[in-house]
Amino acid sequence: MDCTFCGLIREDAAHWVAREAVTCAFSPLDSLAPGHTLVIPTQHYADVFDTPHDVLAATMALVQRVAGAMRSALDASGVNILSASGLGSEQSVPHLHFHVVPRWMGYGISTWPTGRSEHHLTDDPGARLAAFLAREQHHRS
Amino acid sequence: MDCTFCGLIREDAAHWVAREAVTCAFSPLDSLAPGHTLVIPTQHYADVFDTPHDVLAATMALVQRVAGAMRSALDASGVNILSASGLGSEQSVPHLHFHVVPRWMGYGISTWPTGRSEHHLTDDPGARLAAFLAREQHHRS
Repeated sequence: MDCTFCGLIREDAAHWVAREAVTCAFSPLDSLAPGHTLVIPTQHYADVFDTPHDVLAATMALVQRVAGAMRSALDASGVNILSASGLGSEQSVPHLHFHVVPRWMGYGISTWPTGRSEHHLTDDPGARLAAFLAREQHHRS
Repeated sequence: MDCTFCGLIREDAAHWVAREAVTCAFSPLDSLAPGHTLVIPTQHYADVFDTPHDVLAATMALVQRVAGAMRSALDASGVNILSASGLGSEQSVPHLHFHVVPRWMGYGISTWPTGRSEHHLTDDPGARLAAFLAREQHHRS
């Protein structure tokens, strides 16, 4: 397996923030802010589409604990949570990861996207999503 | 209660993508891409710090279903998941929300943060987070 993050785990080569059975967290090499942390499932899943429901829940539980630690241990006033999945999403490493970025008032960073996607859909995309989810729910029950 | 999102729920005034007991999803007025969706807990929680563990898990389960619907029903090749919590994080509405933004190859948007936080911490912030989480884990067990 050629995954960068799986390599970090296998070789114990990361600056670990937390290392647990199902999830782990570490400092990225290229940091957007002091304390910037990546939270990932320990097992390899490419992205949010591929990750089992319970593994995603466990990953978010660690995201939440890391966010709390940023407030308590780094005096952060807030955090951003960012994740990219799949082609065209600017996902760097195809192993699901959530960036947790600590924020303090008035430091020069913006996490709001720049630009706007002008992809053309002829009908109402929100209604299309709603119809898809309703059908999916119907098939489940 | 003066919360914009609670108002949308109370007055049934959103363009709903999904409306369930614990979580819901709707199209924001100011959209970054066709199909851009916000996923929130139905009950009011300000941010990731305040949200109970199980409610966060349910919210992410809907995020995941919405992401899947974007791929299946809108032919998106990827998605971005973005959330801001607390002061200084650029959180617009203080009711926990995850932006799910569909992506297609080659459309002009970037979700990678701009700038860099130069907040000064004298010691190793990753190690400080690790020590905090280890203490917290110790107190739990």
